[in-house]
Amino acid sequence: MKVVIIGSGNVATILAKKLFHANVQIIQVFSKTINHAEELAKQVNATAINSFNNINNSADAYIIAVKDDVIGEIATKLQLHDKLIVHTAGSVSKNILKNSSANFGVLYPIQSIRKNMNLEIDIPFAIDANNNESLEVIQTIVNRISLTSLHYNDEQRFKLHIAAVFACNFVNYLYLQSEMFCQKEGLQFSVLQPLIEETANRLKEFSAKDVVTGPAVRGDFSTIQKHLEILEDYPEQKLVYKTISDLIVKQFQQVKV
Amino acid sequence: MKVVIIGSGNVATILAKKLFHANVQIIQVFSKTINHAEELAKQVNATAINSFNNINNSADAYIIAVKDDVIGEIATKLQLHDKLIVHTAGSVSKNILKNSSANFGVLYPIQSIRKNMNLEIDIPFAIDANNNESLEVIQTIVNRISLTSLHYNDEQRFKLHIAAVFACNFVNYLYLQSEMFCQKEGLQFSVLQPLIEETANRLKEFSAKDVVTGPAVRGDFSTIQKHLEILEDYPEQKLVYKTISDLIVKQFQQVKV
Repeated sequence: MKVVIIGSGNVATILAKKLFHANVQIIQVFSKTINHAEELAKQVNATAINSFNNINNSADAYIIAVKDDVIGEIATKLQLHDKLIVHTAGSVSKNILKNSSANFGVLYPIQSIRKNMNLEIDIPFAIDANNNESLEVIQTIVNRISLTSLHYNDEQRFKLHIAAVFACNFVNYLYLQSEMFCQKEGLQFSVLQPLIEETANRLKEFSAKDVVTGPAVRGDFSTIQKHLEILEDYPEQKLVYKTISDLIVKQFQQVKV
Repeated sequence: MKVVIIGSGNVATILAKKLFHANVQIIQVFSKTINHAEELAKQVNATAINSFNNINNSADAYIIAVKDDVIGEIATKLQLHDKLIVHTAGSVSKNILKNSSANFGVLYPIQSIRKNMNLEIDIPFAIDANNNESLEVIQTIVNRISLTSLHYNDEQRFKLHIAAVFACNFVNYLYLQSEMFCQKEGLQFSVLQPLIEETANRLKEFSAKDVVTGPAVRGDFSTIQKHLEILEDYPEQKLVYKTISDLIVKQFQQVKV
């Protein structure tokens, strides 16, 4: 199995390293900036390139791991006939690749990926392809580097991406609001870390609806009111507090009635 | 060290068990419902009581671990002279106990506590008291069962509780929205678990502001728009998505300018 990696960012780096460690041969790493390509290429025993003219046409798969809004531009520059080409985006259709090859698909990592993350952390993948043969090749690739993969079509993947935005991006925004508030008030945010981890880990065992807690779930309006008063000087936090508390009260009053 | 536990819910149970395992003598467990008192009492080798008249007046500390809105009522029924009395609430002043004893304070567990949680999980505490002697006794108690405690006054504790509402209660609400959306769309929510845990664990190493990701942070308005269209039939999720995305865009555009 020989692979070309197009991109040198977080996803490209972790995919390339995981594949390399799984004895998949990375023959080339492409980046517009040759230094970036070289930095990754040397870690996975690949050749760095920065011109589409130099792309090796003998690989089994071409993985485009770049920002969503440049996938289309790159796709137009690749003519791979029937070579498998995939992108790694949650919210971009596989069909953006349809003019690049007869065989195309998606390899979407369901994880927030950073170059320096622990390579041992398992990354589930949502995969898709325009035909069964391509899907099988993608499945074979994923099986080398991941314990979990799901075959989701474009619409399912877009929706899973939304679910991930709630459970990761928005959650991190709440952590940030909490952290900023603690910093401004001279409180030690790190003392909340065990609580934060417990809240996340509990989902392994319980549905989120069975572990809801807090003033809004209890309908404890005097505490909510007290908190909103304390947040008077924090307009963003106050808006988030009020919006989410109102929704929680509405939801759990309806459930309990 | 002899302690009386007033309450039999989640916090009372875990505090009593942790103290018991740390060789603190729990002499009584009080609950209005004697069956509840008995259930906890038998686990910590204590006597179950359901009448304030039967409260033993020879303990070193009395811990009120009940719902916020009944602390005041219980306090009026306790006349403990100079015996240390504490409550465990984040958003209730210590002064609610001032007519019950000359020595009073707070022992607030900074954790989301469930009766059946793993007793090994460390619980940081925010502690407070009306004088140094009481604070020292509370500190001694906490040191037996926890690695971390902070001396925070009422106002600081209220604020820490707000930070915990963001980082735990509201986060769990986002998990719930994500889970409900997945269920309705036939997607496997559990595939997000590694992402959820990574997002939480990353805070051990990074500030939340250094690990923000997602369409809103990137100013990727076409993805945001696509997501909002998909959420058309989910008014609550759509409102949360729009509110938080708008705030993220506002914050990160300001930061980057």
